[in-house]
Amino acid sequence: MLRISLLRFLSLPSRSSSSSSLFFNPVSPYSHSQSMAASAYTTSSDSASSAKLLFRQLFEKESSTYTYLLADVAHPDRPALLIDPVDKMVDRDISLVEELGLKLIYAMNTHVHADHVTGTGLIKTKLPGVKSIISKASNSKADRLIEAGEKIHFGDLFLEVRATPGHTLGCVTYVTGDGPNQPQPRMAFTGDALLIRGCGRTDFQGGSSRQLYKSVHSQIFTLPKNTLIYPAHDYKGFSVSTVGEEMLYNPRLTKDEETFQNIMENLKLSYPKMIDIAVPANMVCGLQDLSERPVESVSN
Amino acid sequence: MLRISLLRFLSLPSRSSSSSSLFFNPVSPYSHSQSMAASAYTTSSDSASSAKLLFRQLFEKESSTYTYLLADVAHPDRPALLIDPVDKMVDRDISLVEELGLKLIYAMNTHVHADHVTGTGLIKTKLPGVKSIISKASNSKADRLIEAGEKIHFGDLFLEVRATPGHTLGCVTYVTGDGPNQPQPRMAFTGDALLIRGCGRTDFQGGSSRQLYKSVHSQIFTLPKNTLIYPAHDYKGFSVSTVGEEMLYNPRLTKDEETFQNIMENLKLSYPKMIDIAVPANMVCGLQDLSERPVESVSN
Repeated sequence: MLRISLLRFLSLPSRSSSSSSLFFNPVSPYSHSQSMAASAYTTSSDSASSAKLLFRQLFEKESSTYTYLLADVAHPDRPALLIDPVDKMVDRDISLVEELGLKLIYAMNTHVHADHVTGTGLIKTKLPGVKSIISKASNSKADRLIEAGEKIHFGDLFLEVRATPGHTLGCVTYVTGDGPNQPQPRMAFTGDALLIRGCGRTDFQGGSSRQLYKSVHSQIFTLPKNTLIYPAHDYKGFSVSTVGEEMLYNPRLTKDEETFQNIMENLKLSYPKMIDIAVPANMVCGLQDLSERPVESVSN
Repeated sequence: MLRISLLRFLSLPSRSSSSSSLFFNPVSPYSHSQSMAASAYTTSSDSASSAKLLFRQLFEKESSTYTYLLADVAHPDRPALLIDPVDKMVDRDISLVEELGLKLIYAMNTHVHADHVTGTGLIKTKLPGVKSIISKASNSKADRLIEAGEKIHFGDLFLEVRATPGHTLGCVTYVTGDGPNQPQPRMAFTGDALLIRGCGRTDFQGGSSRQLYKSVHSQIFTLPKNTLIYPAHDYKGFSVSTVGEEMLYNPRLTKDEETFQNIMENLKLSYPKMIDIAVPANMVCGLQDLSERPVESVSN
């Protein structure tokens, strides 16, 4: 019902208009209908790109976790995915998906989180058609286990998988596709591999400072400088950065490898308070038969 | 120094290129140089709009306050402004301004906040050329007191002032300009007048539920439906909404006026814990002679 009312209210365009010559901002969070976008870009209505991506950044305060909602709103199904959902925020996320008239198809993680319980299991109990995704290298269970180089399609858009281990042995970075009909600039969902002016710790879960340094330099810093960095966390209130900015100002990853390793090995961080609860839960939260368990058990 | 290194690194274009035919996303947070933007939009390099707005959303967790950084990066001075800075986050904000090679010219508030101390006074002590702005109706002191209908220029971009009293008697909403060279879709910085799926309380500081209802319906809901809503706070982890979404899903402001007033008069909220510290501080924080006081006194 919600979806129908939104579609009516916004006068959403038919499928055929996705191939029209309207240009609009593929990254902006506002773009939940092509008709809206078109009216906004009247000064450039003869350019080439088509309206596609709806994007929203969501935050969970306790663990300072960012969850990302992406959808192809030019596709008639309006297929959507959530990256790094948090269990306690699942109702918020699902409400938003419904209000925006989207069809959630994937709930995915950048890695096995140690600081919060993923929302993927709970989402699957509430929206049974949704498939969970995590990397094969994480040794976790999920509906789909992905590896470097794979593409995750949602409508006519897709994410590329890049292996960026070092914070954990199974960390991946999801990068929006490279191509004329994909969002520009590209967006990199870096998990804990690269944070804004920081990076994830490397002392648990198969972490390795040497590997993290290599991952960031070979898999993230090789992206175009205007690529948007959307991390899994931010503790200082930043919402986004760019590859160019981090190459200049990241206080750890601008150092040489040896200095970086020294920094990471001397952080003297306390034992993660949620790790013994979160990691076991997160390694099975993608499991299909979670839908048969009581909801309460997911976050325990 | 930082600015010079950034400009070199990013190979920033000269002033003349601001009138070139490059099109780029004026809303996206990535857009800190026209050259970056241009390379990202190769598919539409013959369209009309020019690169202009850099935009960043920043968060302060304790009071769940959003601060916004806007800059005209096509102008040679790269003039910038901060909306609703928080005192304890001023060092973060100034660092970011410097790293992005911007020149901060305004530190402004949407209203006299009751839940945190504004950063405007502290910013003025650290960057003496910056001018503070608040509404005349707030009865506060600042370098510039603005009224409805005024424009606040930064480079070739500007914000329009809309009076949106009701949360306080002096609340304003800043809206990006309407015009071919201004950001599209428009962006509304609504303070506490309109929150995402909510609104500010109306029981202190000259607040009035009747007035707030009128403000939102006449000054915000009359903007194009794709206008982005950027509030002063969010307590659930949302970062942005649109006029169209709030017209459909705001649980308070979709009600008729009488129901709205009943809701607002029966919220039974506790006394704001910071109000007796924050309001007196915020009514003078724009005062020029703050720069002569010790920094410590600003947040007391």
